[in-house]
Amino acid sequence: MQAAGVDTLIACDPSNMNWLTGYDGWSFHRPQCVVLPLDGEPLWFGRDADAPGARLTVWLPESDITSYDDEGLRRDGRHPMEHLAAVLAARRLDRGVIGVEMDNYYFTAGANAALRRSLPNARFADATGLVNWQRAVKSPTELQYMRVAGRIVAAQFERVLALAEVGTPKNELAAEIFHTATTGVDEFAGDYSAFMSIIAAGADASAPHLTWDERPLRRGEGTFFELGGSYRRYHCPLSRTLFLGKPTRQFLDAESATHEGMNAGLEMAKPGRLCEDIANAYFKVLRRYGIQKDSRAGYAIGVSFPPDWGERTMSIRPGDRSELKPGMTFHFMTGLWLEDMGFEMTESIVITDTGYELLSNVPRQLFIKD
Amino acid sequence: MQAAGVDTLIACDPSNMNWLTGYDGWSFHRPQCVVLPLDGEPLWFGRDADAPGARLTVWLPESDITSYDDEGLRRDGRHPMEHLAAVLAARRLDRGVIGVEMDNYYFTAGANAALRRSLPNARFADATGLVNWQRAVKSPTELQYMRVAGRIVAAQFERVLALAEVGTPKNELAAEIFHTATTGVDEFAGDYSAFMSIIAAGADASAPHLTWDERPLRRGEGTFFELGGSYRRYHCPLSRTLFLGKPTRQFLDAESATHEGMNAGLEMAKPGRLCEDIANAYFKVLRRYGIQKDSRAGYAIGVSFPPDWGERTMSIRPGDRSELKPGMTFHFMTGLWLEDMGFEMTESIVITDTGYELLSNVPRQLFIKD
Repeated sequence: MQAAGVDTLIACDPSNMNWLTGYDGWSFHRPQCVVLPLDGEPLWFGRDADAPGARLTVWLPESDITSYDDEGLRRDGRHPMEHLAAVLAARRLDRGVIGVEMDNYYFTAGANAALRRSLPNARFADATGLVNWQRAVKSPTELQYMRVAGRIVAAQFERVLALAEVGTPKNELAAEIFHTATTGVDEFAGDYSAFMSIIAAGADASAPHLTWDERPLRRGEGTFFELGGSYRRYHCPLSRTLFLGKPTRQFLDAESATHEGMNAGLEMAKPGRLCEDIANAYFKVLRRYGIQKDSRAGYAIGVSFPPDWGERTMSIRPGDRSELKPGMTFHFMTGLWLEDMGFEMTESIVITDTGYELLSNVPRQLFIKD
Repeated sequence: MQAAGVDTLIACDPSNMNWLTGYDGWSFHRPQCVVLPLDGEPLWFGRDADAPGARLTVWLPESDITSYDDEGLRRDGRHPMEHLAAVLAARRLDRGVIGVEMDNYYFTAGANAALRRSLPNARFADATGLVNWQRAVKSPTELQYMRVAGRIVAAQFERVLALAEVGTPKNELAAEIFHTATTGVDEFAGDYSAFMSIIAAGADASAPHLTWDERPLRRGEGTFFELGGSYRRYHCPLSRTLFLGKPTRQFLDAESATHEGMNAGLEMAKPGRLCEDIANAYFKVLRRYGIQKDSRAGYAIGVSFPPDWGERTMSIRPGDRSELKPGMTFHFMTGLWLEDMGFEMTESIVITDTGYELLSNVPRQLFIKD
């Protein structure tokens, strides 16, 4: 914060709120935040109705759990951020430079306007990503959570591969995926994922973000599954593709290119290398296969809430010169969305002292069933 | 729009985008919108990567599907909204009054700033809720979707009641709920819900927005389930409470108060009455039971995307004088969150010509199992 010239930080990103205080509730549809002063402990701020949930999840003392009367404010025509301004003033945090996460959902344009209007003595700085960057290197506990998430996503794939066949409606597979994701593994209960499961078949798989529908899997079609395990809100995303019948040349080529490209990329996944090194090595192989890909090939991952499981800091792409360090975690997103098909075979990894470790253990191949 | 003095509307709310164009993808983690001029057809705007998904879901011609190169913009340091400004300029929509949804997540403070910076010839108006209000009265097709959603949530409760017993871990119930919600009923496939299932037991149930954990249900404890059926993104929320063992006086009283209060409220649910009439009738009964509730007792529902299934227009609360009309749909949210317990028994309804119809059919009672 000091380096960024920020005296007081207002974090509305639910994953930052969780990382800073432990807060965990599905309440991000209403204005809420964690306030972090340069000195002293953070402060939780949310609706009156959500204060009990804060008491049950955060490590802060009661005096640092503050809330607003949603109904009261609405009757007054006031914005919750005006109430936050009063809370800040009472703690003499209404001055100096206040950092806000300008480009984070859950910090709306209206919240920003109300906050600035009611804090005339403060200056504002864009602190988007400031907390997120602190989260880049994971603690041993965080890594344990992510390995559990890796086991949970592996269990999902095991279930999908056991059940998927010609005629299976995609939503029935989604049902099984949810069931396995939430059951978890051993004593570890699964959580909801910050990103929705994607099951995309045939030509629909040219679109990366449709979810599922009731149409059945068909012979001669490839279907990709982009799934995520989640444990205590820590994620392990993973994708694989299933072909029913005899795979076409296009799918076999995509498998070979991805295999080889991923290996080339993973060779660069070690401390001292840069994010872009992974991308460049991967893209170079793809070009040899005649595939031009310029969308980014991965991103940092960790704790997250909907709608995205990315950490929104480092990207695996040319130009991102972030240095890889032990404990950093990434989804190496080697998906290919071509004109009339999609192929996804991805890995989530943690950088170790000497290279990388896979967070999940799912056979890296195009799955084929008759 | 004309009444609101808006020449061009920019809708970032994914449910508004869906309602206006049919667009349906899990892509709201990136800037996207539908532009609606006063004359002519809407325009879809999103990432290059999501344009194929738009082609598969919207009813617009190819010329009205516009997209931006996410990677390119990032390299330039530009914001996607600057690209949108150029798109608007090319269509002569960069002037007059542009309405933006100031208080909608997915229209971030940063997006607002970038848009205003790059549209110097436009004036801006807050159009939060403008489209949402148009959605209030549902078409027969929309009502059919919501009735299907009602059947899906009823199926979830049937499953929960069959399986829940002393010792069942809450996440295992969540797994069954997801499975049933996604399988759907008959030929109708379930969709993901815009709001997460809440399973809150014992004292945790004093907090309305914790989701679930691995702890088992216990004898002598009440657990509320706030669930939602979703079909083609249309929702039917519903809550019930289950008590394992002999229910305490507190739970029986909460059941009686809610029963009676809900009946009093539902008597007001007819065309010509106001939203607040329902709330006032309900609160009046609660007061007789010595329960002071001032949080709102419901909200309009319909098509939605995470993180909220509310329509964010009308509320069932004192002061909301919106007139009830046939085809309007509400979640009558009669949840009680007391100091050390929570009790939820709610209904989703549609206003008919003469009164109301329940969107789901789940016995209205405190469920008790030994």
